[in-house]
Amino acid sequence: MAAPALHAVILAGGAGERFWPASRQRFPKPFLQVVGGRTLLAATLERARRFAARDRVWVVCGREHAAAVRRATRLPAARVLAEPRRRNTAMAVAFAAQHIAARDPDAVLAILPADHHIPDARAFASAIRKAAAAARDRASLVTLGVKPTRADTGYGYIQVGAAADRRHPGLRCARRFVEKPDAARARRYLKRGDYLWNAGIFVFTARAILEETQRCAPELHRALGPLRRAPRARSGAPLERAYRAAPSLPLDVAILERSRRVWTLPVAFHWSDVGTWLSLAEELGVRPGRTRVLDGELLFDEGRGNLVWGDRRAVALLGVEGMAVIDTGDVLLVTKLDRSPDVRAVVASLKRRGRRDVL
Amino acid sequence: MAAPALHAVILAGGAGERFWPASRQRFPKPFLQVVGGRTLLAATLERARRFAARDRVWVVCGREHAAAVRRATRLPAARVLAEPRRRNTAMAVAFAAQHIAARDPDAVLAILPADHHIPDARAFASAIRKAAAAARDRASLVTLGVKPTRADTGYGYIQVGAAADRRHPGLRCARRFVEKPDAARARRYLKRGDYLWNAGIFVFTARAILEETQRCAPELHRALGPLRRAPRARSGAPLERAYRAAPSLPLDVAILERSRRVWTLPVAFHWSDVGTWLSLAEELGVRPGRTRVLDGELLFDEGRGNLVWGDRRAVALLGVEGMAVIDTGDVLLVTKLDRSPDVRAVVASLKRRGRRDVL
Repeated sequence: MAAPALHAVILAGGAGERFWPASRQRFPKPFLQVVGGRTLLAATLERARRFAARDRVWVVCGREHAAAVRRATRLPAARVLAEPRRRNTAMAVAFAAQHIAARDPDAVLAILPADHHIPDARAFASAIRKAAAAARDRASLVTLGVKPTRADTGYGYIQVGAAADRRHPGLRCARRFVEKPDAARARRYLKRGDYLWNAGIFVFTARAILEETQRCAPELHRALGPLRRAPRARSGAPLERAYRAAPSLPLDVAILERSRRVWTLPVAFHWSDVGTWLSLAEELGVRPGRTRVLDGELLFDEGRGNLVWGDRRAVALLGVEGMAVIDTGDVLLVTKLDRSPDVRAVVASLKRRGRRDVL
Repeated sequence: MAAPALHAVILAGGAGERFWPASRQRFPKPFLQVVGGRTLLAATLERARRFAARDRVWVVCGREHAAAVRRATRLPAARVLAEPRRRNTAMAVAFAAQHIAARDPDAVLAILPADHHIPDARAFASAIRKAAAAARDRASLVTLGVKPTRADTGYGYIQVGAAADRRHPGLRCARRFVEKPDAARARRYLKRGDYLWNAGIFVFTARAILEETQRCAPELHRALGPLRRAPRARSGAPLERAYRAAPSLPLDVAILERSRRVWTLPVAFHWSDVGTWLSLAEELGVRPGRTRVLDGELLFDEGRGNLVWGDRRAVALLGVEGMAVIDTGDVLLVTKLDRSPDVRAVVASLKRRGRRDVL
């Protein structure tokens, strides 16, 4: 008997708000070309194709981005799952699991955020295959845990415990999920060695995640009712009803932190969620004395250590260090790089003021 | 006999380089509307008209700006003196003096830079009239000296000595011109009280300044030869020859520092040369907690204390204080305000690299 098929489920529903003003409601972060010479979505698709056959690659995205995703990925409409509203990752994954299980009841799903940066696609695919084997054999939910290389306060962590079994070397039990720590705790985690970055990359069978949804997230399970009764629906009334009823929760919070079937595969490849202008600057090698420019022209940079996104404009920086200057056609953001996680506050303020024109 | 006529000579030949990128070779600082609701040139013209009849207002400017000056001021071509090349203020004043003296040998000239900010036009005109009376009676070169209100290191100073005579109350002898001081000396000057800001505003008869040119600046005097022989020329070969031969020196250095006929009229009105983004920020009331915006829209400013020139773009500032963000259509400058005097270095670098497109 052939092994159950491995599907890639790319989650492209995030807003990437901390990447404002480059990331916009109509043109969110997966569509940006910020690192590695192509869009984050294209790079994710390429990684997915290393372990999943073309007809087993799926993208879940907001309905308003479905056409752009189809154009960018050249996936057929049937494999772009358009969400009628944003309900966070638990619902996105549940929708995909339900939909794929209706076609392939033994499907194994690898959940990939569309906006991360993982340069070593080969190591990534190898880890996913290992995780998939464990997910199948043990009917477990396997998370990838990235070995930390610095005391990062911008990531969530997974504390790992005992090894799983000899058939799956490396696999550890996931003892605890912890939210973004403060600097002191992050340093402690780094030192201890049993804390890994939660990369938001998960592998499980469709069956296991739906069972755990029922057990750990009954509200979400109930919301899926209309989709269970119309298992091939990917639009129309059943989907609308399901999304209207669904709670808006991350998969970690809704299920992984509560399930007893969660295991972690530690990985050591380079990974970044490119979550903020600061983390992009780090990816691009910005450091004191070294500025990096994405697009645009840097005319003068006496300060250095900056990140510049120049649109079509030439940029001159004088006495400026550790800054991001992000210049889209219509909006200019100037921020200290170490404040860039707070770009979210700018976006929140614009939302409160109804400034859809710049969101 | 009527008193000799008072002419206003507006010097609009400066490059305003420290105001880059708003001030450009084709669109220099006098044409900018930065404070007071109209261009600096228009405000200067209005001040001039308070003490000079319309047909006694002159502008000296670069040939490349003559048409724009005529359009902006509605002065007839005959009163816009176009310099074939930039030769600093000594030559600009000598050219104007020579040219006006050929028509009005007893003319009294008030020399006004076109890019300063003096909100109290009435007090200004009154000071010019006082200075003109002294310049006539004593055949002297009268400079306006502004009573300092802070220990500014961006201005030159005039040390004043004894009072002149009872007919011209307030008039003091000019003992010494000093270049921009360091902070300690500036504080000392402020404390002493006998140091005034050199505002670059001068009043003298055409005859006196030409005599002192001959005595103090013989090279400049020689260069004027072709214009003495063709006293009505304001273009063509005599002007070309004169400008080719003329040294490039400020009036202060070439003549005022050397002449023994220099007096200073202390004035207390508000004056700024709006020389840098920092001095403009001060004029506009930028201070910690208070950002000012010229054009454009400020979407978010959590840092405050910034100066923003937004073009048509909306600007968001996060974690940013004491900065100037100057966004023209094609160029963006981001600088610490206290580094803004060094914008000159940016311009110099662009010149070296032949970047006329952004100069």
